[in-house]
Amino acid sequence: MPELDTTRRAPFARQLAAEATGSFLLFAAVVGSGVMAQRLSGGNDGVALLANAIATGAILFVLITMLAPISGAQMNPAVSLVAALRHDLRWREAAAFALVQLGAGILGVWAAHLMFGMPILEVSPKPRTGIGQWAGEFVATFGLILTIIGTARFRPDWIAPSVAAYITAAYWFTASTSFANPAITIARSLTDSFAGIAPADVPGFVLAQLAGALAGSALASYLFPDAPV
Amino acid sequence: MPELDTTRRAPFARQLAAEATGSFLLFAAVVGSGVMAQRLSGGNDGVALLANAIATGAILFVLITMLAPISGAQMNPAVSLVAALRHDLRWREAAAFALVQLGAGILGVWAAHLMFGMPILEVSPKPRTGIGQWAGEFVATFGLILTIIGTARFRPDWIAPSVAAYITAAYWFTASTSFANPAITIARSLTDSFAGIAPADVPGFVLAQLAGALAGSALASYLFPDAPV
Amino acid sequence: MPELDTTRRAPFARQLAAEATGSFLLFAAVVGSGVMAQRLSGGNDGVALLANAIATGAILFVLITMLAPISGAQMNPAVSLVAALRHDLRWREAAAFALVQLGAGILGVWAAHLMFGMPILEVSPKPRTGIGQWAGEFVATFGLILTIIGTARFRPDWIAPSVAAYITAAYWFTASTSFANPAITIARSLTDSFAGIAPADVPGFVLAQLAGALAGSALASYLFPDAPV
Amino acid sequence: MPELDTTRRAPFARQLAAEATGSFLLFAAVVGSGVMAQRLSGGNDGVALLANAIATGAILFVLITMLAPISGAQMNPAVSLVAALRHDLRWREAAAFALVQLGAGILGVWAAHLMFGMPILEVSPKPRTGIGQWAGEFVATFGLILTIIGTARFRPDWIAPSVAAYITAAYWFTASTSFANPAITIARSLTDSFAGIAPADVPGFVLAQLAGALAGSALASYLFPDAPV
Repeated sequence: MPELDTTRRAPFARQLAAEATGSFLLFAAVVGSGVMAQRLSGGNDGVALLANAIATGAILFVLITMLAPISGAQMNPAVSLVAALRHDLRWREAAAFALVQLGAGILGVWAAHLMFGMPILEVSPKPRTGIGQWAGEFVATFGLILTIIGTARFRPDWIAPSVAAYITAAYWFTASTSFANPAITIARSLTDSFAGIAPADVPGFVLAQLAGALAGSALASYLFPDAPV
Repeated sequence: MPELDTTRRAPFARQLAAEATGSFLLFAAVVGSGVMAQRLSGGNDGVALLANAIATGAILFVLITMLAPISGAQMNPAVSLVAALRHDLRWREAAAFALVQLGAGILGVWAAHLMFGMPILEVSPKPRTGIGQWAGEFVATFGLILTIIGTARFRPDWIAPSVAAYITAAYWFTASTSFANPAITIARSLTDSFAGIAPADVPGFVLAQLAGALAGSALASYLFPDAPV
Repeated sequence: MPELDTTRRAPFARQLAAEATGSFLLFAAVVGSGVMAQRLSGGNDGVALLANAIATGAILFVLITMLAPISGAQMNPAVSLVAALRHDLRWREAAAFALVQLGAGILGVWAAHLMFGMPILEVSPKPRTGIGQWAGEFVATFGLILTIIGTARFRPDWIAPSVAAYITAAYWFTASTSFANPAITIARSLTDSFAGIAPADVPGFVLAQLAGALAGSALASYLFPDAPV
Repeated sequence: MPELDTTRRAPFARQLAAEATGSFLLFAAVVGSGVMAQRLSGGNDGVALLANAIATGAILFVLITMLAPISGAQMNPAVSLVAALRHDLRWREAAAFALVQLGAGILGVWAAHLMFGMPILEVSPKPRTGIGQWAGEFVATFGLILTIIGTARFRPDWIAPSVAAYITAAYWFTASTSFANPAITIARSLTDSFAGIAPADVPGFVLAQLAGALAGSALASYLFPDAPV
C-alpha cells in the first residue's frame, strides 16, 4: 500500500477519524442502497443488485478520493492487515484501524436502519455458506488486494476508480456478491435486509477473506516487485 | 470550497449566468429524467430510480466540469451558504446565487413539463416526511458538503466526478433519495411527477438539509484543516 | 470548438476518414444497441433505454478519445455548422464533413441491420412529433453545443467523458431521447426499430436541432468569452 | 500497441504471469457475472446483459490499469496477433501469450463454476452462428483493435477506460454480444450458462474475429500513421 506511506502524514487521531467517517458512510451506503433496491425493484433481484453495485462503487470512488490522502481510506481490516504485513502500518495502528472501521461501520448500518424506518437493532437470518460462497470471498478479496497494490504501483492516482470498478464487478462475478471485508461482514450480520448475512456464517466468510488477502498479497509481491513499501 | 476561490475570476453577472444555466439544466434533468423513467419502466421503480440516478450523476459531471471555473457550479443554496460561512463568498453574493438557483431551476422544471407534454404549472401531492426522510436529507447533505470540501482539498480537478458519483450513490442509500438541495426541494414541489414533494413537506426537508450542511462543514474543518479558504 | 483548431493537423482526407469511421461506428451503436435492448428487455422500455443510453455514452467516449485529435470527432452536422460559424472550419469543409457523416452513418445503420438479421433497407413508421418533442431536440442540442464549447474552454482533455455523460443524461431528460444530430436523425429514419423516426417527422427535428445549436453557441459566446476560436 | 513497447520491461516470465492473472480474472468475471445475472434477473435478459456488460467493463478497467505496464494486459490472442504483426511482440512471444491466455482463462471459467456451485466441466449447447453473428464478431474485433491502437496514439493513459467502455458498448451493439477474443470464445464453449457458445460454432467466431482484427489494424495504420511501433 505504498500510496498510503507517502501521503499519510496526518496525525493519528485524524487518521482514525477518516477511517471512521469513511466506514460509516460506506457501510450505510451498502446496507441503505440494498434496502432501497429491494423495496423498489419489485422482486427483480437483478435490478436490485445492479443498483446496489453501482451505488457501492460510486461511494467508494468518492470516499477513497477524499480520504485516502489522510488514512489510506482502507475501511477494511483485511486491507489494514496486509498494510501491517507490508510494514506500511504498525500492528497496533492496524488494530486500531480495524476497531474503528468496525465500530463506525456498525453505526453506519444503524443509520441506514434509522433512515429506512427499520428497527435499529436487527440480526440477519440470511444463510450464506458453502464452498461456492467461500470460494467467492477468497477470489473477491484476492482480487481486491491485487487491485490496490497493483494500481498503487503504476497509477496511484487511479486507486479510487480502480477499487470502485473492482467492487462493482465483483458484486456480480463472485457468487457471494463480494463482501471482501471482515468488518462489513460482521456489520452486515446486524441487518435483516438484502445485504445481510446470518451471524453463524460470518466466520467462514472472514476466514476466506483473510486467506484471499494473503494470497493476493503474495502474488502482488511477485507481479509488482518494485512497489514502494 | 477552495477551488471556487482560486478560479472564480469571472465578472459577477457571468457568475450568475453560469449558476442560472447550470440550475436550469440540472433541475430540468432531475425532473425530466424522472418523468421519462416512470413512463418507461412499467411500474418497476427500481429501474426508474436507476435511470434517474444515472442521468442526474451524468449531468452533474458535465455541468460542474464546464461551469465550476466560472461560478463554482454550486447550483445549491446549501453549498452557497457553506461557501459564505467559509468566507469564500460574500453573504450578498450567496443570497444572489440562491435566488438565481431557485428561479432558473424552477424554469428548468417547467421546461421539463413542456417537453413531456404536462401542464406547466403543477403542485406535487407526494408526501415525503417523517424521521427517516429527515435523517436521509441530513445524511445526504452532510456527505455532499464533505465530498465537495474534501475533494477540493486533495483532488480539486476531480470535484465533478466526485460530486456526480456521490449523488448517484446517495439517490440509493438515503431513504429520501437525496434531494440535498433547498432550491431543488422547492422546485420539485412544483411537479406532479416521480421527483415531486408535497409543499407542506418542503420545510422539514430544508431544515434537515441545512443542519446536515453545517455538520458536514464542521467535520470537514477537522478532517481537512489545510484546505484553502 | 477550439480544441479542434489546435489539434486538427491531419490531412483533410484523413480527417474525412476519421469522421466516416466515427459516424459509422456511432450510428451502428445507436441503432444496434436499440435493437438488442428492445429484443432482450421483455417489454420494459426503461431497461431498453438504459442499455441504449449507456451503450451510446460508452461508444461516444471511445470515439471522441481516439478521433478528436484527427478531425474533432464531430460526427454531427450541427456541430460542424457551429464550428464553421466560429471560423474553426471552412464552410466547404463543414459541408464535406456533413456529407461524410451522413453517408457513413447510414452505412452504420445498415451494418446494424445486417448484424441483427433485419432487412437492410427499411423505413421507420415511428411518429416523433409535436411541441414537446421539438422542445426536447432544442434543449438537447443547445446543451450539447454548450457542453462541447464549455468543456473545451476549461478542460479540453475531458471533452470525451463530458459529451458521453451529456448524451447519456439527455437520452433520459429530453422527451425526444435526444437525437441532437441532423445526420443521425436522417439515418434513424431508415430503421424500423427502437431508435427509428418516421421520415415525415425528420424536418421538425432537424429545425429544432439547428435552432438549439445556434442558441447554445450564442450563450457559450457569453459564458466562455475567452475560448480559443 | 505502442504503449506496450515503451513500458513492457518486465522479465518475460512475469509478463506471462500478468497475462495469466488478467485472463483468469477476466474470464471468471465474464462467465461468473453472466451466471449471477441470469439467476437474478427473473427472465429479463435485458437486465442480465446490462449487469454482464457493466461487470465486464469494470473488471477490464481494473486489469488493464494495473497489468498493462507489465505485459500490455492483452488477455486476447487477436490482440497479441496484431502486436506481432506490428513488430511489437515477437511471434514466439505472441504464441506463448496466446497459450497462457487460453489456459488461465479456462481456469477462470472453472473458478466461476466452482463459485456458483456448477459442475466444473461443462460444454455449452448454445448456438451462436449465422451471418449476423459473424458480422457482429467482425465489427466487434475491428472496433476493439482500432480502439487500442487509436487510444494508444493520442491518449495512452486512457487505454483502460477506452477498452472498458468499448466492450461495454459492443456487448449491446453487436448481435453476438462481442466476444471479440478467440481465447474467450474457446473458454466460453466450456460453460453451460448465459455466456456460453456451442463448440461447433467456435471456428466461425474465431475466423470472424481474426478478419476483423486484421481490418482494424489496416485502418489504424492509415488513421494513426504516427503511432509508435
